[in-house]
Amino acid sequence: MIRFNIQKLSSTLADDLKKKIDAKTKPVGSLGVLEDLALQIGLIQNTIRPSLSTPHILVFAGDHGIVSEGVSAYPQDVTWQMVMNFVQGGAAINVFCKQHSITLHVIDAGVNYGFNDHIDGIIHSKIAAGTKNFAYEPAMSHQQVAQAIEAGARIVKNIHQVGCNVVGFGEMGIGNTSSASVIMSLICNIPIEDCVGKGTGLDDHGLQHKIDVLRNAIARHSDYDTPENILATFGGFEIAQMVGGMLQAAELNMIILIDGFITTSAYLIAHAIEPAIQDYTIFCHQSKEKGHQRMLHYLNAKPLLDLNMRLGEGSGVAVAYPILQSAVSFFNEMASFESASVSTSV
Amino acid sequence: MIRFNIQKLSSTLADDLKKKIDAKTKPVGSLGVLEDLALQIGLIQNTIRPSLSTPHILVFAGDHGIVSEGVSAYPQDVTWQMVMNFVQGGAAINVFCKQHSITLHVIDAGVNYGFNDHIDGIIHSKIAAGTKNFAYEPAMSHQQVAQAIEAGARIVKNIHQVGCNVVGFGEMGIGNTSSASVIMSLICNIPIEDCVGKGTGLDDHGLQHKIDVLRNAIARHSDYDTPENILATFGGFEIAQMVGGMLQAAELNMIILIDGFITTSAYLIAHAIEPAIQDYTIFCHQSKEKGHQRMLHYLNAKPLLDLNMRLGEGSGVAVAYPILQSAVSFFNEMASFESASVSTSV
Repeated sequence: MIRFNIQKLSSTLADDLKKKIDAKTKPVGSLGVLEDLALQIGLIQNTIRPSLSTPHILVFAGDHGIVSEGVSAYPQDVTWQMVMNFVQGGAAINVFCKQHSITLHVIDAGVNYGFNDHIDGIIHSKIAAGTKNFAYEPAMSHQQVAQAIEAGARIVKNIHQVGCNVVGFGEMGIGNTSSASVIMSLICNIPIEDCVGKGTGLDDHGLQHKIDVLRNAIARHSDYDTPENILATFGGFEIAQMVGGMLQAAELNMIILIDGFITTSAYLIAHAIEPAIQDYTIFCHQSKEKGHQRMLHYLNAKPLLDLNMRLGEGSGVAVAYPILQSAVSFFNEMASFESASVSTSV
Repeated sequence: MIRFNIQKLSSTLADDLKKKIDAKTKPVGSLGVLEDLALQIGLIQNTIRPSLSTPHILVFAGDHGIVSEGVSAYPQDVTWQMVMNFVQGGAAINVFCKQHSITLHVIDAGVNYGFNDHIDGIIHSKIAAGTKNFAYEPAMSHQQVAQAIEAGARIVKNIHQVGCNVVGFGEMGIGNTSSASVIMSLICNIPIEDCVGKGTGLDDHGLQHKIDVLRNAIARHSDYDTPENILATFGGFEIAQMVGGMLQAAELNMIILIDGFITTSAYLIAHAIEPAIQDYTIFCHQSKEKGHQRMLHYLNAKPLLDLNMRLGEGSGVAVAYPILQSAVSFFNEMASFESASVSTSV
């Protein structure tokens, strides 16, 4: 499998960055998380003139064999229908990307539908028309996983080449909370029932059924000794392409923006492969989906927003994005005590 | 004193608004707080076509006699120096307002400094050059409070006349966490030591001294049987003008955006006078200043952001503002299941 060269961030510039932050006309520390972000972005970009350039959100879409087991409140067709909705500009992520001038790319990572090659706005990166049903067999072959990781990496390389230095990850895929829950359970070592939520809207009976299906699926397999094997056995094409995209972004010193439950499950795999990725990562929001809070706790990650959202699509990334802009703006634009002739503390 | 006619919101449109929200291409409820905001804004504006027009942030500045007791980490001159910094565009609130195209007005509500009348960008609304030291005497006379409330109301009327329908409140005033702490203690009936924090950066010894000063000040006075009396005895000119501005905004059906600890203390007074104001109010962030969380809890208010900020100036309002824009945008711009031909849940 493709390997990535991800370095932990050097703290060489940390003192200079902190000095510049503390000289701004405000009490030391009073911009809280915005100061943490300015420092992190400065370190990622290795500069005291940080900037956010050509931001992108990549929404990876894929279908899941496990939906045959009745684990989702929506039919599988919603995956391709929502891809078309993204292309036509009608989804939440379209609205939020437009609001913040974020370029949106929609990727067919493995949707069970034949999109017309000529549709503008879809990146065609289909590995197969949906995964196998992991209740009975591995979702993906190891070859498919390797292909998917390379495909995700290539997409991130391409946006980097057009000047993007900050990339958010989002997804669409009916059934993919099931994959995410199993990945969480196996990576974080948390019982499956604590990792399963209602997804897009199951009732209590549907939730119990989903837990049973996933518990039985885990019991059926034994091939999950490595993160790659967990990904192959229980993951999805959109999840695997996100893993590749995230690892590639870190290798390229890009800022990585993580969305909700499913995106974080991809991150759990990427992080298990290359823990240094965390230096490059900003967790944008805490999803209302049960389990996401414990995922974030496992990662020792503090999300920027907690707005009871649970939509996916990268929506949490887009809504949080202006907070990053605020961090970079105060750092670059605020006056210092000296330049503004303001007295410092006594 | 001037009275305001503030009506609780009618829920006539609530069903229509909810129906429109639920028809959007997303699982019901999955945009969380954004859906709550869209509903609230629709009800405030009494329309199913809500909009945010000509947003303003008003930063009220005032000085405080209590600083003679050594309750602040910064000298009093910082109040006027920061007013000049606002006028020159170098403060955090300038940067964030510019980022989101919010018009910023800075009001001299009672700064202990003679600003040149011709300085562009200051609204001259000075009641006096700082309050009296409430360790010994009431901070303001009842006549001054009435003047200040009218002055704040007038400023909000003026921005409403230029088309503003959403107004954020912020402040600057060395020493004003002391006023805010006492207001909180008396309105919320919470012991003063639980209401006092480090403000802009006191050490532990300074914090204990501040608690002692405020406890003694409360013991010295007895004129705090009404919100107006609490405001007169322990408040400040910037706090009183915010009270008037908030009440006027609610009377005019404007959206009211509340910042941190001091702004919320003004809101506590406004809310005690006219509880119906809460229907019009959005709490933008939870400050790191000790006490703010309990203030919000007293008000049963859920803030949009929790970013460890404690700067004042309306900075929490400005950073949170794009979340309101996201709420209005998804409501107005997203496709419905029907218009996008997406299947609904099974």
